[in-house]
Amino acid sequence: MSTTSLELRSLITPEGELRLSLEEREIAPPGPDEVVIRVEAAPINPADLAVLLGPADVATLSVEATGGRPVTTATVPPHLVPRASARLGKSLPIGLEGAGVVVEAGAGARHLLGKVVSAGAGRMYTQYRKLPAFDVVPFPEGVTPQEGASAYVNPLTALGMLSTMRLEGHSALVHTAAASNLGQMLNKLCIADGVEVVNVVRSAEQEAILRVIGATHIVNSTHPDFRDQLTAAISETGATLAFDAVGGGPLGGLILAAMEAALVAKVPPNGPYGSPVHKQVYVYGRLDRSETTTPPTVGMAWGIGGWLLPYHLTRIGPEETRKLRERVAREITTTFASAYTSEISLAEALQPDVIRRYRRMATGEKYLVRP
Amino acid sequence: MSTTSLELRSLITPEGELRLSLEEREIAPPGPDEVVIRVEAAPINPADLAVLLGPADVATLSVEATGGRPVTTATVPPHLVPRASARLGKSLPIGLEGAGVVVEAGAGARHLLGKVVSAGAGRMYTQYRKLPAFDVVPFPEGVTPQEGASAYVNPLTALGMLSTMRLEGHSALVHTAAASNLGQMLNKLCIADGVEVVNVVRSAEQEAILRVIGATHIVNSTHPDFRDQLTAAISETGATLAFDAVGGGPLGGLILAAMEAALVAKVPPNGPYGSPVHKQVYVYGRLDRSETTTPPTVGMAWGIGGWLLPYHLTRIGPEETRKLRERVAREITTTFASAYTSEISLAEALQPDVIRRYRRMATGEKYLVRP
Repeated sequence: MSTTSLELRSLITPEGELRLSLEEREIAPPGPDEVVIRVEAAPINPADLAVLLGPADVATLSVEATGGRPVTTATVPPHLVPRASARLGKSLPIGLEGAGVVVEAGAGARHLLGKVVSAGAGRMYTQYRKLPAFDVVPFPEGVTPQEGASAYVNPLTALGMLSTMRLEGHSALVHTAAASNLGQMLNKLCIADGVEVVNVVRSAEQEAILRVIGATHIVNSTHPDFRDQLTAAISETGATLAFDAVGGGPLGGLILAAMEAALVAKVPPNGPYGSPVHKQVYVYGRLDRSETTTPPTVGMAWGIGGWLLPYHLTRIGPEETRKLRERVAREITTTFASAYTSEISLAEALQPDVIRRYRRMATGEKYLVRP
Repeated sequence: MSTTSLELRSLITPEGELRLSLEEREIAPPGPDEVVIRVEAAPINPADLAVLLGPADVATLSVEATGGRPVTTATVPPHLVPRASARLGKSLPIGLEGAGVVVEAGAGARHLLGKVVSAGAGRMYTQYRKLPAFDVVPFPEGVTPQEGASAYVNPLTALGMLSTMRLEGHSALVHTAAASNLGQMLNKLCIADGVEVVNVVRSAEQEAILRVIGATHIVNSTHPDFRDQLTAAISETGATLAFDAVGGGPLGGLILAAMEAALVAKVPPNGPYGSPVHKQVYVYGRLDRSETTTPPTVGMAWGIGGWLLPYHLTRIGPEETRKLRERVAREITTTFASAYTSEISLAEALQPDVIRRYRRMATGEKYLVRP
């Protein structure tokens, strides 16, 4: 017997109109190694917003109520339409991750029936989702779907940062936009694993958030002594790797230069090329869409480049990924706990005023969709 | 019996004075696996100039003739002294590479006696140089030291670029400042090995230099259609790797953006993160010492970073390095041939007017030191 599911979709027309809608989909019964989840909770991550809204101007949001279900529309400024060129005319599913209850299971997956599980395969802003049993991870008894909603993107990103650190031979790291939900999680994880992290924040309020959870190295980029403090913290921790959520502007390059200064102060190089120790910055976000600048004071053993969770998971492979997900499931109410400031329904997720609220992505605010 | 050798040395005092001198050194007899070379020819590479002159102001060059041998001095501008901090007060040898005749050999290296060999272990602006036999590579019969002088830096850099390309899974490459001695050699090598290279130059004159040696993809960065031509050439060759001698400014980032544009045009991505194919720029020179800028239009699978021949040779190891050097020796008068515009003695290398001429590093000009 098939199940009917309402699913949130996002489309940008070739003319540059964003159209958000709820569509009815039939979910066929699961195959032998498949399950059907009733989705109970799915967070709104920055990466979800990027797909949901694209480059549309949220000031132009309005609701079109022609006939059936309402459709929310907005205008994409003409000069930004090319940025969406690859998706024009395609109706896209949304929702990178979420948690729910297994309500149907194929012959090989009966043991999952009734369990609360996490999913990270996308298309989670929907009422029901069919997935291969290997792609869902059950939580320990007693974990609720709300507690388990964010068991993929942020936890695996934090774990992925540490696994990158180990794979590439570094022993400590720098993190920017460090008071974010992800940044807090990274600190809890690093404390648990005995890894030192230098947190770069932009305000005293953000410093305080990190102090509370036990972070020790915190530098404020608005402080006049920022460069010296950053170099000192890098020297103390020996960090030669950074993950940067800002992306544009001078921050990534400043971090590389501070690493080089810390290394050269410890071991003066015997040539004109600076320290031979490799320094790496990975840009994993684009809070700032301006150019990334790197000064010439970084020596010759340096790199800056993009880092994306799916690319990292491809690099480590499905078995290693599964192990990381199982650790997240075990520690979902401790190391990897997330907090939400608001819960909304699928229908509310399409309302212009609600959209304008959740797309601000303010530090400390996080939304949960309850389909 | 020991040999007396005149050797060029460069010192920057803690007060910021550059001092160039010729010093007499005693060369002890070679050990069982060592040889002594009479150095006949050593080129002046940009990397040699960096050590020879440091950040000194060549307008202030003068000769001090107190007592013994003349000493050439120059002033390092005070704000640039910190750039030389690691070498202050140290007398440095110069001359990355050169060729000469083996005039003494230990018991295990007799087969090299009388042979013309290449050396790349530094300290070659000297009359005699003692080295482990493993570190010199003999040329085929008939090759002169002048022909063999540049068998290390440029040939191994060109070969190192191709070995980096293969190690990191790319199949074609982009090269900037492409009409340089190295750039010409890279083209000859790529033609020999069947690898496509996109040459970025700054003038019609440089285009002509490369056409003569058979280069097919040449784009001029001063042309108004530069971006489109670069993207077209990258698309045609499938290049996802670039070696950039300029370092500062927008060029490296433009190349990454052109690679991304070429990839996205071929395979439209199905998400907001652009092409998943990794694009890499290696900065191996700093003709421009301004900041390196990278635009946000490079997707998420990208990297830019430093590349230095010694780091690459460490990566591939001594056996693989030796194989590359043996290929260079075999092809030193064809693929890896260098041309020089002037020959100077060690004494002339210290004369202010001669220094000002060879430090211009103009395209097509190259100096050979004949100790």
